[in-house]
Amino acid sequence: MNLDTGNLLYRGKAKDVYQTNQPQQVLVKFRDDITAGDGEKKEIMSLKGYYNSLISAKLFRLLEDAGIKTQYIDLPEPGYMISHKLDMIPLEVITRNIAAGSLLRRFPFQDGQTFNPPIIQMDYKNDEYHDPMLNDDIILALDLASSEDLETIRKITLKINEVLKSFLESRGLLFPDFKIEFGRDIDGNIVLGDEISPDTCRFWDIETCDILDKDLFRKGESGVIEAYQKVANIILDDEDKKKWNLDF
Amino acid sequence: MNLDTGNLLYRGKAKDVYQTNQPQQVLVKFRDDITAGDGEKKEIMSLKGYYNSLISAKLFRLLEDAGIKTQYIDLPEPGYMISHKLDMIPLEVITRNIAAGSLLRRFPFQDGQTFNPPIIQMDYKNDEYHDPMLNDDIILALDLASSEDLETIRKITLKINEVLKSFLESRGLLFPDFKIEFGRDIDGNIVLGDEISPDTCRFWDIETCDILDKDLFRKGESGVIEAYQKVANIILDDEDKKKWNLDF
Repeated sequence: MNLDTGNLLYRGKAKDVYQTNQPQQVLVKFRDDITAGDGEKKEIMSLKGYYNSLISAKLFRLLEDAGIKTQYIDLPEPGYMISHKLDMIPLEVITRNIAAGSLLRRFPFQDGQTFNPPIIQMDYKNDEYHDPMLNDDIILALDLASSEDLETIRKITLKINEVLKSFLESRGLLFPDFKIEFGRDIDGNIVLGDEISPDTCRFWDIETCDILDKDLFRKGESGVIEAYQKVANIILDDEDKKKWNLDF
Repeated sequence: MNLDTGNLLYRGKAKDVYQTNQPQQVLVKFRDDITAGDGEKKEIMSLKGYYNSLISAKLFRLLEDAGIKTQYIDLPEPGYMISHKLDMIPLEVITRNIAAGSLLRRFPFQDGQTFNPPIIQMDYKNDEYHDPMLNDDIILALDLASSEDLETIRKITLKINEVLKSFLESRGLLFPDFKIEFGRDIDGNIVLGDEISPDTCRFWDIETCDILDKDLFRKGESGVIEAYQKVANIILDDEDKKKWNLDF
């Protein structure tokens, strides 16, 4: 099945977005490129796009069931997602439940310190400026979003965190932090876009604290794709596994 | 007059704070040390502390007259300020009316772009972590201030900006940005502390746009102390000049 025949609208670091024959629908192709360190470290990792699309589709459907608008429409086959066309807001909205990663390098938090309420951090999605952290005043001055938008984004983000954290913990995964992106649909609604996967989240085994996400790649460790596969195996329902003949 | 006989409570990059014989009063000595680039560039500049203390005292008094609580009690002689003892909050509260300096390096603003309302940015006063920029959630998680404190600080800061900007413009100076620090007095009030000087503000000549602040030192240009003296000459009233026999 060759789905990427439409017009390429956007090529990101790990996904391509194509126009479909429906004006308000796009096809998102989850590529196997994996990058880290502001794009300095790059590789192709076979099946990464496959697992990320399955994990993202499952988590988007879970959020839809909880009343959160997402871009998700359908997963015609692993690796490809039919999505609502969104005008993306260039903010990387990061939610932190446990101190890890750049937060520890930048600020004097304790490794493993938990945050309740979580910390929400917004970075500017801008390669030239290396995705700098923002504050609300700077977001307004750069005209990236309005005060009302920011309030909406925060409210939705906290709800997403609640739904995902509770689901993941029930499946034996800790959810230290994650990055999401939002866009506006044709009616001006703020809608969750992008992906929710081991590329954009930290997932730790609740028992062993084993890392099951892109941090393995960042640290140059082995077993990256095996970790992504494990997350898919943990998160997907039997129905999904049967549908795609997944034999973990 | 040798005023620094008390117990040294704090030694900063450009000021020393001594205990006086009044438990709730300290003596702030404005030193001639001038630093830039996260402390990497350092010099001694004769008379810098002298002018900064005079400028700070004048601006603190101006703010007191506008109903803003400051640490200022008295200037017994240039270079020394008697101040209320404060428990300092480790935030560098930066207000930006015109895009300049690090803001331009970090974010895609236009050089000279004006902000109305101004941008308020809060950095963590922490040498080990190189004074990183914060957001409200991180400030709360680091327990540096409460939500109520932040609201108070923002409100006072906007008022300070209004009073200073209007005064400085009336004297022919543009006020692109400034950094202030707050502390708590014995009654728990949030009070403006530190200093307001060419070390901590940008001052530009309104006609020529000449730089009259520490940026000259940062850029390795000449005429640094002459610029500080010029700011003192512009800001101080005849009364001050007569009192200290200042002959500009």
